[in-house]
Amino acid sequence: MNGGGPKKLVDLLEDPLPGVGTYEDFNTIDWVREKSKDRDRHREITNKSRQSTVALLRSLSDAFSGWLLMLLVGLMAGALAGGIDIAAHWLTDLKGGVCLIGFWFNHEHCCWTSNETTFQERDRCPQWQSWAELIVGNSEVGAFAYIVNYLMYIFWALLFAFLAVILVRAFAPYACGSGIPEIKTILSGFIIRGYLGKWTLITKTITLVLAVSSGLSLGKEGPLVHVACCCANILCHLFTKYRKNEAKRREVLSAAAAVGVSVAFGAPIGGVLFSLEEVSYYFPLKTLWRSFFAALVAAFTLRSINPFGNSRLVLFYVEFHAPWHLIELAPFILLGIFGGLWGALFIRANIAWCRRRKTTRLGHYPVIEVLVVAALTALIAYPNSYTRMSGSELISELFNDCSLLDSSQLCGYKQPVNVSETGVGNSLADRPAGEGLYTALWQLALALIFKMLITVITFGMKVPSGLFIPSMAVGAIAGRLLGVGMEQLAYYNHDWLIFRGWCSPGADCITPGLYAMVGAAACLGGVTRMTVSLVVIMFELTGGLEYIVPLMAATMTSKWVADAFGREGIYEAHIRLNGYPFLEAKEEFEHSSLAVDVMRPRRGDPALAVLTQDSMTVEEVETVVDSTHYSGFPVVVSQESQRLVGFVLRRDLLISIDNARKRQDGVVSTSQVVFTEHAPTQPPEAPPPLRLRGIMDLSPFTVTDHTPMDITVDIFRKLGLRQCLVTHNGRLLGIITKKDILKHMAQIANRDPDSILFN
Amino acid sequence: MNGGGPKKLVDLLEDPLPGVGTYEDFNTIDWVREKSKDRDRHREITNKSRQSTVALLRSLSDAFSGWLLMLLVGLMAGALAGGIDIAAHWLTDLKGGVCLIGFWFNHEHCCWTSNETTFQERDRCPQWQSWAELIVGNSEVGAFAYIVNYLMYIFWALLFAFLAVILVRAFAPYACGSGIPEIKTILSGFIIRGYLGKWTLITKTITLVLAVSSGLSLGKEGPLVHVACCCANILCHLFTKYRKNEAKRREVLSAAAAVGVSVAFGAPIGGVLFSLEEVSYYFPLKTLWRSFFAALVAAFTLRSINPFGNSRLVLFYVEFHAPWHLIELAPFILLGIFGGLWGALFIRANIAWCRRRKTTRLGHYPVIEVLVVAALTALIAYPNSYTRMSGSELISELFNDCSLLDSSQLCGYKQPVNVSETGVGNSLADRPAGEGLYTALWQLALALIFKMLITVITFGMKVPSGLFIPSMAVGAIAGRLLGVGMEQLAYYNHDWLIFRGWCSPGADCITPGLYAMVGAAACLGGVTRMTVSLVVIMFELTGGLEYIVPLMAATMTSKWVADAFGREGIYEAHIRLNGYPFLEAKEEFEHSSLAVDVMRPRRGDPALAVLTQDSMTVEEVETVVDSTHYSGFPVVVSQESQRLVGFVLRRDLLISIDNARKRQDGVVSTSQVVFTEHAPTQPPEAPPPLRLRGIMDLSPFTVTDHTPMDITVDIFRKLGLRQCLVTHNGRLLGIITKKDILKHMAQIANRDPDSILFN
Repeated sequence: MNGGGPKKLVDLLEDPLPGVGTYEDFNTIDWVREKSKDRDRHREITNKSRQSTVALLRSLSDAFSGWLLMLLVGLMAGALAGGIDIAAHWLTDLKGGVCLIGFWFNHEHCCWTSNETTFQERDRCPQWQSWAELIVGNSEVGAFAYIVNYLMYIFWALLFAFLAVILVRAFAPYACGSGIPEIKTILSGFIIRGYLGKWTLITKTITLVLAVSSGLSLGKEGPLVHVACCCANILCHLFTKYRKNEAKRREVLSAAAAVGVSVAFGAPIGGVLFSLEEVSYYFPLKTLWRSFFAALVAAFTLRSINPFGNSRLVLFYVEFHAPWHLIELAPFILLGIFGGLWGALFIRANIAWCRRRKTTRLGHYPVIEVLVVAALTALIAYPNSYTRMSGSELISELFNDCSLLDSSQLCGYKQPVNVSETGVGNSLADRPAGEGLYTALWQLALALIFKMLITVITFGMKVPSGLFIPSMAVGAIAGRLLGVGMEQLAYYNHDWLIFRGWCSPGADCITPGLYAMVGAAACLGGVTRMTVSLVVIMFELTGGLEYIVPLMAATMTSKWVADAFGREGIYEAHIRLNGYPFLEAKEEFEHSSLAVDVMRPRRGDPALAVLTQDSMTVEEVETVVDSTHYSGFPVVVSQESQRLVGFVLRRDLLISIDNARKRQDGVVSTSQVVFTEHAPTQPPEAPPPLRLRGIMDLSPFTVTDHTPMDITVDIFRKLGLRQCLVTHNGRLLGIITKKDILKHMAQIANRDPDSILFN
Repeated sequence: MNGGGPKKLVDLLEDPLPGVGTYEDFNTIDWVREKSKDRDRHREITNKSRQSTVALLRSLSDAFSGWLLMLLVGLMAGALAGGIDIAAHWLTDLKGGVCLIGFWFNHEHCCWTSNETTFQERDRCPQWQSWAELIVGNSEVGAFAYIVNYLMYIFWALLFAFLAVILVRAFAPYACGSGIPEIKTILSGFIIRGYLGKWTLITKTITLVLAVSSGLSLGKEGPLVHVACCCANILCHLFTKYRKNEAKRREVLSAAAAVGVSVAFGAPIGGVLFSLEEVSYYFPLKTLWRSFFAALVAAFTLRSINPFGNSRLVLFYVEFHAPWHLIELAPFILLGIFGGLWGALFIRANIAWCRRRKTTRLGHYPVIEVLVVAALTALIAYPNSYTRMSGSELISELFNDCSLLDSSQLCGYKQPVNVSETGVGNSLADRPAGEGLYTALWQLALALIFKMLITVITFGMKVPSGLFIPSMAVGAIAGRLLGVGMEQLAYYNHDWLIFRGWCSPGADCITPGLYAMVGAAACLGGVTRMTVSLVVIMFELTGGLEYIVPLMAATMTSKWVADAFGREGIYEAHIRLNGYPFLEAKEEFEHSSLAVDVMRPRRGDPALAVLTQDSMTVEEVETVVDSTHYSGFPVVVSQESQRLVGFVLRRDLLISIDNARKRQDGVVSTSQVVFTEHAPTQPPEAPPPLRLRGIMDLSPFTVTDHTPMDITVDIFRKLGLRQCLVTHNGRLLGIITKKDILKHMAQIANRDPDSILFN
C-alpha cells in the first residue's frame, strides 16, 4: 500500500502543470505533439458540441475563427502596407523639396491639389519647391542651387538612415534585415521569442519607411513579409486555438507570408505560391485556401487605400502589345545567364561581407556603418537620375514601353523624318536612338555598376532591408540595355536573316520594356532561386499568358546557372550564416550513411543517459538530468534490457519534480519515480512515489540502426521531428536530434559542424 | 563450417533477382523503399560521374531526362487534345448536316472555305447543308424537314454512342469514366496495370471524341487528364529512371494531371494547382516547377494547333468590362448556395445510381444502358436549342456579354425607343427584356432541369465521361437566369435603395455573363470541392483579378454548403464506391483510438505470424507463408523475445526461395533460412543455409502500441507507408496495414469495413 490518506496524487494527464508542454527560446518545436494536441482539442470541442447549443455555437465559432483571423490579418497587413507606401513616398519626395501648401503632401499630391492645371508636366507646379528654391530663392537656378539640393539630399538621406538604425537598436534589434531567413526558420518549427512581437512590428514599420526613404539600395518587399507575419502573430493572441498551439500558429504565419508578398507586388496568387515554394515548411491544403483568402483581402485593402494613386493593384503595371518572336529567346536566355551569374556572385560576396561583419570589429559599429553606406549611396546616387529615383520608380520606368508622347529620356528616339516614309506612320514602330537615349544608356550602365556594388554591402546592415527591389533593378537595367541594343540592331539591320520576316522597317518588333522585365525576373530568380512563384508574380503584373514563356526561359536558365555555383539561395545562405537549425526540404540527402553513423552516443562515447521506468529515485533522476545537457531522456524498462518505453523532455521533468517537491506531500529525494501505469508495490515505510507517466511521450519515434540516413532525414522533414530514437533488434541504442542531422550534413559538405548553433 | 566448395551464395543485395522489389497488380507501393531506391541510383550515377567523361555525360543526361520527358508529355498531350477538339467539333456538326465541298470540314470551316463571304451570318452558307436539305431537297423547309433532321440527329447520336461503348468494351474497359478517381488512387501509390497503357490511351482518345459528339451530357475535361496521364506513363518507358521506379513515375503522372487540365481549359497555372490540390498525393516542389513547364508546353502546343480557330488559349474566353458592385455579393452567395446544394445532391444521387448499377442487373447491360440514355438525351435535347448545342458551346454563350449587334436569343432585349432618351445612348446599357429573351429564359429553365437529371444517370456509364462541363453548364444556366433576373429587377426598379447610386437608368450595371461564370464555378466547386485551383482556372479564363472576389465568395459558400451534407467530393465518393485503398490527405483523423485498437492480431486472435532470424528451415518458412495470406512477415530474434529485426515481403520471399531451390545447390527443405549477417555455426552434415538478409527490409517502420491513431495515420500519409509494425516496450506486438486503417475509418463512419477491397 502506498501512502493514501488526504494526499492526492497529481494526475498530470488531466490537468497539465503550467509550463509543461511549452518550449524554451531558441528551441525547435515538436510538430507531431503540437498537431496531436490540436486534434485532441478539436475532438473535445466536437464531442461537447453535441451536448448543448452553447457548445455547438462555440464549436462553430472555433471552426470559423481561422477565417476571421485570416480576414483580420489581411486587413491589418493591407492597411499597414498602404501606410508604409504613402509615408515612404512622402519622405522620399521630401529629400528633393517640400510642398508649400502643406508639408505633408508628397510631390504628386501637392501638384494635384494645386489649382493651376494648365501646365502640361504634372510634376512641375509652383506649390512644390525644391530646397534650393526655398532656401536660396526662386530665381536662382544653376550650379549653386544644384549644390544646395545635393547637400539637402545627402542631409535627409543621412537623417533617415540614422533614425532608422537608432530606432532598430533602441527598440527592436530583430527589426533589421529582410526577416525572410528567420521566418523560414520559425516556420520550420524554431522558436525566436519576440521576433514577431509588437515592438518588432512597430519598429519595423517605422524604420522600414525611413530606410526606404533614405535612398539606400534596399526594398520594402521582404520586410513586408516580416510585417505581415508580425501582424499574424499578434492577432493569433486573440484566439486560444492559435495562441496555445505552435503548429497552428505556424499555419497562420505561412498564410501571412503570402499576404506580405501579395501586398508587396499586388500579386495574391504569386504570394500564395511564394509562401508555398519559398517560405513554408508545413503547408496543408487548408492553409492554401486560407492563404489565398487572406492574400486577396490584403490586396484589396491596399487597393482601396490606393497608395499609388492609380487604382492599380500591382506595383509595376505594364501592358505590352507587341508579341515576342521565337528568336528573342536567345537574348532572354542570355539575360537568364546574367541573372544566374549575378545571383551566385551576389550571394558569395554578400555572405563574405556579412561574415566579415560578424567576425571582425566592423560589426561593433552598426550605426557608423549605416551612416557611411547611406552617405556613400547619396553622394554617388544623386548626380545620376536613375539612381536618384527610388528603386521601384526606376523599375517602373524601365518596364515601361515608350509611347510617342513620352518625355522620358529613355524614349529619346529620333522622330521619323517623314511619316509617309515609314508607311502608315506607326507611332510605336522601332526608331533610331537619339541623343537622349544615348545619355540614358550611359547613365543606366553606370547605375548598373553602382547598384551591383552597393547592394552587396547594404543587404544585411542593421536596418530593415529587402532584396527584391535591388535585385530586380539590377536585372531591369541589364535587360533594358540589352533590349535597346537589340532594338537598334534590328532597326539598322532589318535585312539580316534573323530579323527578316518579323522586323520589317516601320514595324514594332522589339519591346525593350519586356527585356527589362525578363531581366528583373532572371536576377531575382538567381538571388532567391524562386521559380514558379516568380513567374506567376510576373504574370500577375502583366496579366497576359503571352509572356510566360520568355519569363520561364529566363528564370529557368538563371536558376540552373546559379545552382551550378552553389545550390543555396540568399535566404538559405543567411540561415546557415546565422546557424539556425533549418532542415532544407528541397534538397535531397545524397550521402549513403546510416542512422548508426549519426546517432549519439558515438562508438566509444559513454552510454546514452536513460531513465528506467520504475527503479530510480527522485535523486537519481536529478543526478542524471544535472550531469547532462540533453533536452530529453528515453525511458526504458530496465538498464539491462534497454527496451524502450517512452521519452520524457528535460523541461517537463524539471518542472514536474520541482512542482511535486513543493506541492505534493511526502515527495522527497528517496521517492521513487514511476513511469508505469501502476506503481510497483513498495515497502509500507517508503515515501509515496512520484508518478510521471503523464509527462512521458508514450509514442516516441524510433528507427533501426540500419535505416539509411536519407530515409531518416525524410522522416524528420515530413513529420517535423525534433528527435528520434535508434534501436537495434528491439534494444535502445542511441538518439538522433535535428542538430545531429544538421551537423552531419555540415560535415559531409566540409563545413564546420559547430556552425549549427541551436537545437 | 558451412558448406563451401563451388557453391556460391547468391548475394541478393548486389544483384537482385528479377521480380524482387516489384509489385503485384492491385497492390500499394512502398513509397519509402521506392524513393530510397531512386536515391541509391542517383548516388551511384553521381559517384561514377567523377570517373569518366562518358559517365559525366550520362549523369547530365540523367539530370535532364526529367525535363525532356516533361517536354514530350506536354507536346504529346497538347497534340492529342488538339486532335480530340477538332474531331469532336467535326462529328458534333455532322449530327446536323454535312459540308458539300468535303465531308471532313466542320460547319465553321466549311463556310470559311466558301468563296461567298457576302452574307452576314457566317454560320449559314450554301456549302453546308442540313440532312433535310440534302435528303429531301433544298426547297423543303417545314415540319417534314424538321423531322428528318431530328431523326438524323438521333441516328448519329446513337451511332456515336454505340461505337463508343462497343470500342470501350472490346479494347480497353479502363477507358470508361472520367478516370480521375483512379488516377488519384494510382498517384497515392496503388497499382492498376493497364490503366495507363497504350490501349487505354488509344481507345480513350477515340471513344472520347465519339462520346462527346453523341450529345450525351458529359465533357472531355476529366478524360483529358486520363489521356495526359496515359501519355506520361507511356513516355516514361523511354527513360530507365522513370520506367523502373514507381515513385518517380508518379511524380511524372502528377505533372501529367496538370497538363490535362491545362489543355482542357487553357489554364496552365490552374492546372498545376488542380494537380496539387485535387489529384496529387506526393508532390515535391521539383514537381511543381516541372508540372508548370509541361502545362505551358501543352497549352502552347494546343494553341498552335488552334482547334477553336480563334488563337485563344482558353476554352471560354470572356472579357467583361463593367465592374461588380458590393451588393451583388448577395446573389453571388445565393449562387454559391445553389452550387453547394446541387453538388451535394448530385453526389448522393449519382452514387446511389452507380451503386444500383453495380449491385443490380442494370450493370449487366452497359451497351443497352448507353444506347437508351443516348436516345433519351437526343430525343429530349434536340427541340431545345440550348440542349442541342454542345456543352462547351452552351457555356460559351452563357458566359458571353451581350453587345448591341448580338443576334443570339439571349440578347433579345428591346431596343431603346429613343436613343436620346437615355442620354448618350450607351450601347451596353441595361435594357428591358424582349420577346426573344423571354423565350430564351424558358428554354434555359427547361434545359437546366433536363441537364440536372440526365447528368446524374450519365456520369459513370461505360463511356469516357467528364463532369466538368455538365456541372459548369448547370451552374452557368442558373447563373444566367439569376443574372437576367437581377438585371431586369434593376432596370425596372433602379430607384430601389439597393440599386440607387450604381444602377442609374442608361447605365450598364449588371453583367448576366458574370453571373453565369460565378454560377458555373459554384456548381463545379460543389461537385468536386475544388477551391483555389477552381478560382485560378476561372481567373485565367477572364484574365482579370477584378472578378476573383465574386468567384471566391461563390466557391467558398458552395464548398461550405456542400460539406455540410457530406465531406466527400464526387471523386472521393467514386473511390470509396470502388473500394480503392485511398487514404485521403485532406481530412483529419478525428477519432481517439490508439494503434493497439487497429493493429492485427486483435485481442483473442492467434499470434502474429513471424519468422525468426536464424532458427527456421525452408520448410517451416514455407508453411508459415502458405498458411497465411499476409503480404509480408516480420523477422524477429526469437519467438520468445519478439525483438524485431526486419520485415520481409511475401512476394520477395517466395521468389527467392523458389530461385534458391532451382539454382542454388544443396538448398533443400531442411536448409536453414538465415536473416543474420553471419550464418550461425551448424553441424557439418547440415545442408547449406539459405541466406536471405538481402531481401529483408532492415528498417521497418514501427510505432508503439500507445501511439494515437491520428499520428499513425499522419505517418502513413506523409511517408506513404504500406504497413507499420507495432511494438510494446521493445517487443513486437502486431502490424497495421493501410487496409487496416481504411477499414477502421470505415467502421468509425458506420460504413461496411469490407468495402475496402485492396491492400
